This record gives sequence, structure tokens and C-alpha cells, in this order.
Amino acid sequence: AQQVTLYGRVDLSIAQRANAADNTELRNGSGSRLGVRGSEDLGGGLRAVFGLEHRFDADTGAAGEPFWGGKSVVGLAGSFGTVTFGRDDNPAVKMVQEAADPWAGDTVAGNGNIYDGNVGSSRYSNTITWRASFGGLGLGAQIAEGDGLDDRPMNFAISYGSGPLYVALGLDNPGNADDQFTSVMARYTVAGVTLSALYGTGTDRNDRDVDAWLLALKTKVGGGELRASYGQRDNEGVADPFKQLGVGYHYPLSKLTTVYADLVNVKPVAAGREKTGWDLGIRHNF
Amino acid sequence: AQQVTLYGRVDLSIAQRANAADNTELRNGSGSRLGVRGSEDLGGGLRAVFGLEHRFDADTGAAGEPFWGGKSVVGLAGSFGTVTFGRDDNPAVKMVQEAADPWAGDTVAGNGNIYDGNVGSSRYSNTITWRASFGGLGLGAQIAEGDGLDDRPMNFAISYGSGPLYVALGLDNPGNADDQFTSVMARYTVAGVTLSALYGTGTDRNDRDVDAWLLALKTKVGGGELRASYGQRDNEGVADPFKQLGVGYHYPLSKLTTVYADLVNVKPVAAGREKTGWDLGIRHNF
Amino acid sequence: AQQVTLYGRVDLSIAQRANAADNTELRNGSGSRLGVRGSEDLGGGLRAVFGLEHRFDADTGAAGEPFWGGKSVVGLAGSFGTVTFGRDDNPAVKMVQEAADPWAGDTVAGNGNIYDGNVGSSRYSNTITWRASFGGLGLGAQIAEGDGLDDRPMNFAISYGSGPLYVALGLDNPGNADDQFTSVMARYTVAGVTLSALYGTGTDRNDRDVDAWLLALKTKVGGGELRASYGQRDNEGVADPFKQLGVGYHYPLSKLTTVYADLVNVKPVAAGREKTGWDLGIRHNF
Repeated sequence: AQQVTLYGRVDLSIAQRANAADNTELRNGSGSRLGVRGSEDLGGGLRAVFGLEHRFDADTGAAGEPFWGGKSVVGLAGSFGTVTFGRDDNPAVKMVQEAADPWAGDTVAGNGNIYDGNVGSSRYSNTITWRASFGGLGLGAQIAEGDGLDDRPMNFAISYGSGPLYVALGLDNPGNADDQFTSVMARYTVAGVTLSALYGTGTDRNDRDVDAWLLALKTKVGGGELRASYGQRDNEGVADPFKQLGVGYHYPLSKLTTVYADLVNVKPVAAGREKTGWDLGIRHNF
Repeated sequence: AQQVTLYGRVDLSIAQRANAADNTELRNGSGSRLGVRGSEDLGGGLRAVFGLEHRFDADTGAAGEPFWGGKSVVGLAGSFGTVTFGRDDNPAVKMVQEAADPWAGDTVAGNGNIYDGNVGSSRYSNTITWRASFGGLGLGAQIAEGDGLDDRPMNFAISYGSGPLYVALGLDNPGNADDQFTSVMARYTVAGVTLSALYGTGTDRNDRDVDAWLLALKTKVGGGELRASYGQRDNEGVADPFKQLGVGYHYPLSKLTTVYADLVNVKPVAAGREKTGWDLGIRHNF
Repeated sequence: AQQVTLYGRVDLSIAQRANAADNTELRNGSGSRLGVRGSEDLGGGLRAVFGLEHRFDADTGAAGEPFWGGKSVVGLAGSFGTVTFGRDDNPAVKMVQEAADPWAGDTVAGNGNIYDGNVGSSRYSNTITWRASFGGLGLGAQIAEGDGLDDRPMNFAISYGSGPLYVALGLDNPGNADDQFTSVMARYTVAGVTLSALYGTGTDRNDRDVDAWLLALKTKVGGGELRASYGQRDNEGVADPFKQLGVGYHYPLSKLTTVYADLVNVKPVAAGREKTGWDLGIRHNF
């Protein structure tokens, strides 16, 4: 038996980005997408799986590059976990870095420029990716072709979850001679408040040290979710660390539709750029 | 509850365009398309809506630019009407200009080069668009970002329909310093014949006056629809007005499939261009 | 009544191509695709048909060019067969050339560089294509626009099938002044082994003779399909004919999912290129 699902998301906000020129504009709040995914039971506990996910700019209707930028995989799943070929998510980003960010990298308040130290990528083409979970233990490993790079990109993540606790460790090796990034995070829910912390350290493609940390919380307030975060990224040779403070409120109109507002302040910024960003948006999943 | 629909159209004709070089070719009769649209009931009379519409050249399989050129929107609908963010139709074109043309701008006989005075566009990216209908009254208003333009494109339309009568007024302000276009139309059905008339006046991007008018009719004949139109566009500084005479017969093989033939004559045309165009096509909706 | 189907394929292999630089890589084993096709009963034995098929590189998620490279057609079907407009398969390739190849041109062992003499293309844009079958007789004819070519591409194929026997003749005229290719093939199944043979002869775009032949077999072994082929292509003015020997095993995990391994040896190859290619892949249809 085979199951095939067409799914997607359109997420648009009126926004002013921080660390950008003064320009209130319509823009993707997260990755607007259209995808097809499926699974076929092959018997004996084995399944064939595939996934295709197109990303696009919903404000203009422009396709992302590559077209199936979100995902393009086929593989097999069984007691050994799932092995996929193709363009796939970086497990270290998904399982460790995004897991520490209440925004998971989305909206103007997402901490994507903190949590990965600006080292590595969210996805790689031409990968073999393995994911498995055994009880509370989660594992992810990825190797990519690295055409034109110094070495093959390799990423690894391990996580453990139990009740209110989730901890994870990730290793990124993006494929340039010197760049690598190690991240560790913990998340704990107590009295309805989810607290998270991340620390990452590594070297960028110019072989300069980079360290980053992030503290965040989220909690339910008035039917919606209140989010807050503060983080820093400290690059060797740069006088002042990059600091980002974010707060947001995401209110679900249904399980599929959310309206949200975010506010973010960063410093330092180059001359002519805004320190403060904000957005007001709607996200609809289908 | 959410409803999602995959829909589309493939429309190809053997055609010779008017005001073009002598070249009988296969070409899109109207915008071949593939789309996904949906609506989710949020309760309390509120709905989330989204729409994605890809346009392509069915003769070659080439994607249009941008990929989701027909539509890319998300928004909310309620008693206030529908508000959408993203790339969307120009209400003045849809509610006023196309409504006066039996071809609604499609095929070689479509009056797209008459009814908008060659001012403005059928769609804009980065818009906020509002549409509402109250009884027979229809309203549409749109504002776009206008990056790189002199001012924000803004479009407005109002319509009234009652029984056999439909009248509408549209205002286009495309975003260049001087261009704007006002159009007014009426359509009336009597004894099975639908008559329509449009008058438009404005200034183009070079601040030269442009006036346009269109007279048209359509009526059922032998199970199909007979269409005819005559129109002129008069641009300041151009000696002779552009004149277009069209006739066509569109025969439905079903509610979804139509075969058609059109004939169009235009003048003046530049040396080496054809005054007469024609097509013979098939349109299939799904 | 209308039927619309969303379908596709993701096919990825770890592969080293023959006649290519030393580079083990992830690559499409066959054309990864996403398509929509449909049929509408118009009554009286008439049907409207359409088909859209996007091709992409599943290893990177990059869209093929044109986007709907696999197919983009609309047409009518009835007792006269099927007539389609748009971008469509070359009947001579589908009905004759691919029919002689156990791989039908797919994977590193496919005989696409043998069976068409490197003359012509698998598909053409801007075509009118007719296909019909009357009992065991199959017919296909295609004419394309040929913009920028010396003449209109025209392709023709006729086939006859009866029980274990299938024979077919194809004529390719790709549109350059001198290129044309005639291919004839036969396939016969005896004692569970399907034997096939093809001979093709013509002239390439430089008006030089080209001859090609292919011998192949396929048979069920251990639940999978064993394939083998040997072929040559002899181009006028080239000292040694191009020779290709291939063997493969394709094992279905289900009707929709196949794992496969192929080995291919070619000669001669230019300096620095591999004579031997191989792949190990998974193909999933949905």
C-alpha cells in the first residue's frame, strides 16, 4: 500500500528586517513551500519513502533555486532507521540548532545567524543521510558529494528526549578546508515554560574561531505562544560580538493557520542599517 | 475543515498572430496553468485562503517567469471580504477591462492591447489586495510594493451587477511617475445577446494621453458561442489609432473542454507584419 | 467524467558513468519526474486528454529545462487514435529504439547512445503527434515546428505485436538539412527469455553515415530481471566503432519500487575517461 500526500505552506508577513536597509516590505515569514511525500509498505517492516519539497518566495511567486530546494529524496526505512539519497536537511541543524530556537530559524526573529555560527548550511545536495530513533535516542548522519569543495560535507547529530527534557549534540563539517562547528543544546519544560540553551563553537571558512550561544523560552499566553530569545555570536577578529534579542507572539487561528508578530533588535549593525526589525504575518499550512 | 484543490488548464492552438511576423505556430491560446488553491474554515465566519498558480507555455513546456506567475497568495476571508498578501490579479483588469471583452484577453482575438491602453499590468507582485461583494456591488483595491518604481502601484475597481446588467469602473496607477488609466464598462444581455462597451482614458509612462474604446457582443449559436468585437486605441503623438476587429466561435465539447477558432484584423501594422491573425485551438480545464 | 492523476518517480543511484571522468557520484538513474495527466470522457467515443511531466535532477533538486521537459500536451482521443499538441515523445524512439533496449535508455547501462545513432531527440517541442493502435498494429507520427532549423522535424513509427513477437520500424528526420535515421527492431520471448535486436542507419547533421546495431536479452532470475546487451555505433570518418557491453540486475521490492545494479563497458574512450561504468540505485514510482 502506498500513501502520497500533497502538502504546502504559504507564509507572508509585512516586515522590516534587522541588520538591513530601512525597507518595510512583504516577505516570506518562513519558507513557503509545495511538496509531495509518500511512503510505501514493502512488507517485512521495510518501507520505500520519497519526498520532494519546492521552496518559493510567496511575495513575488518566484521559485527558489534549486527548484526542489527544500528536499529531493528517495530511500528505504526499516528497523535500521531511514536512509535517503538526494538533497536533504542537515541533521545537526534540525535536531540541535533549530531545536534550541523557539522560531526554528523562521521570521525576522529567527536565530539562524546565531545558532550555526554562520558555518554550514541547512541542507545539502547529493547526500546520503541516515536517521534513526531508538526509544528516546535520536541519531542523524549525513555525507554529501562536495563537488568543488576541499572535502565531503559531513554532519552528525545525536539527541535524547525524555519527558520534559531534550538534549542534543551536533557536528557540522561543511566541506571547506577549515570550517567545522560543534553545537550542544538542552531544552526543558517546567510549569508550562519551555527553556532552551545552546552553545556552539568552531572555525569558519577563513579558519577563524567562532563561538555562539543562545538562551530562549516559549510559553502559552492567551491561547497563543509567547517567544523570547537572546543570543550572541563572537567571531575572531571582530571587535564586538553580534547580539540578537527577539520576542514574538504566534497565535493559532487553527491547527493549520497562525498569525504572528515579532520584534527583534540586533547590534552592532553597519551604517545605514536598521537595528530593529519586526513583522506581522500569516502562515497557512495545507 | 480544509479543502485543497489541484487544478489547471492546457490550452494550445495553431495560430498566426496579428501584428506579428508571418509565422504559423503552435502557441498558448490562453495562459496554460497548474494551480493549488484552498480554504480553511476557522469558525466565526472567518476563513483562511491561499492560492498558487503556475503559468507555462504548453507548446514548449517552458515555465513562465516568475514560476507562480498567475497567483501566489495567502489571506483571510470573512464578512469584510477577502484580504490577500502576495502576487495577485489587478482588480481593475479583472472586474472592468476583461469583463468587457468576450475573450477576456485570451487567444489571438483577445483585446488586451486595447482595453488597458497598454498602461498597467494584469498582475502585481508584493501586493495587499482586498475584494468584497455586498449584494450586487463588487469592490476591489490593491496596493503593491513598487520596488524601483516612482510610486506604489495602486489599483481600484467597483462594479454593480443586477440581472442582465453589469457595470464597472476601474482605476489603474501602475507605479511610474505619470502613468494612470481609468476605465468604465457596461455589459447588457438582451434576447440572448450580450453586448458590452468599454471606454478608457489615461496617460502612459511617457506622460502621453491614451484613449481606448471597445464594443463587443457574444451570443449562443449552434451550441457554441459566437464572439465579435471592434476597438480602437489612440495614443498621443501617433498618427493613426490602432484598430482591432475580431470574431470567434468557441464550441464546448464539455464543461471542461472547448474547441475554438478566431479571426482578427488589426491596423496599422509595421512593415513585414501581418494584419490578419487566426487560431484553431483546444482548451482543457482540469 | 474526468480523471486526473498526480504521479511521479524519484530514481537515484550511486554511479560511475562510462565514457566519463573518474567520479563516483549520486545521480538520476532514469528521469526523476512529477506529472499530472488526465482524461475526460466527452461522449460518442471521444475523450479529451492532457499530460504534463516535469523532469528534475533528484540528486540536487534542480529542475530540468524546459520545466515540463517530459511532456506538455493537450489533445483528443477516439477511434482515430490520439492527436496531441505540444511537447511530446518521439514515437520512433519510444516504439522502436527504446523497445529494443532492456533498459529503455535508463541507467548507466542504457543504450541511448547506440540505438538512435546520436541522431535526433527523444522529445520535441511544438509538435502535433498522432498515435493509434488497431489490433496488434501500432502507428505514430509527429511533426514539429522546427524554429531555427532547416526543416520541420518529422518522426514516424509503425509496430506490430502478436503474442511473443514485437517488430517495429522507425523514421527520424530531426530538422537539420542532412540528418535522418531509420531504425528497425524485433523482440521475441521464448522459454522466459526476451531477445531483442535493432539495426539503424542514417546520416548525422554533418552528413556523415552512421550505422548502429544492438543485441539484447532479459529474463527473470531469482525474482528480479537480468539484462544484458551488446551494441555498436559506426560513424563515417571515425576509425573504430563505439562498442558498448552492458549487464544489469533489477529487483522489484514491489510493483512501484525497484533496486538495481548495472555494469557497463565501452570503448574506445578519450584519454582520462573511464571505460567501465556501474551503478547501484533505487527507483520509486508514485
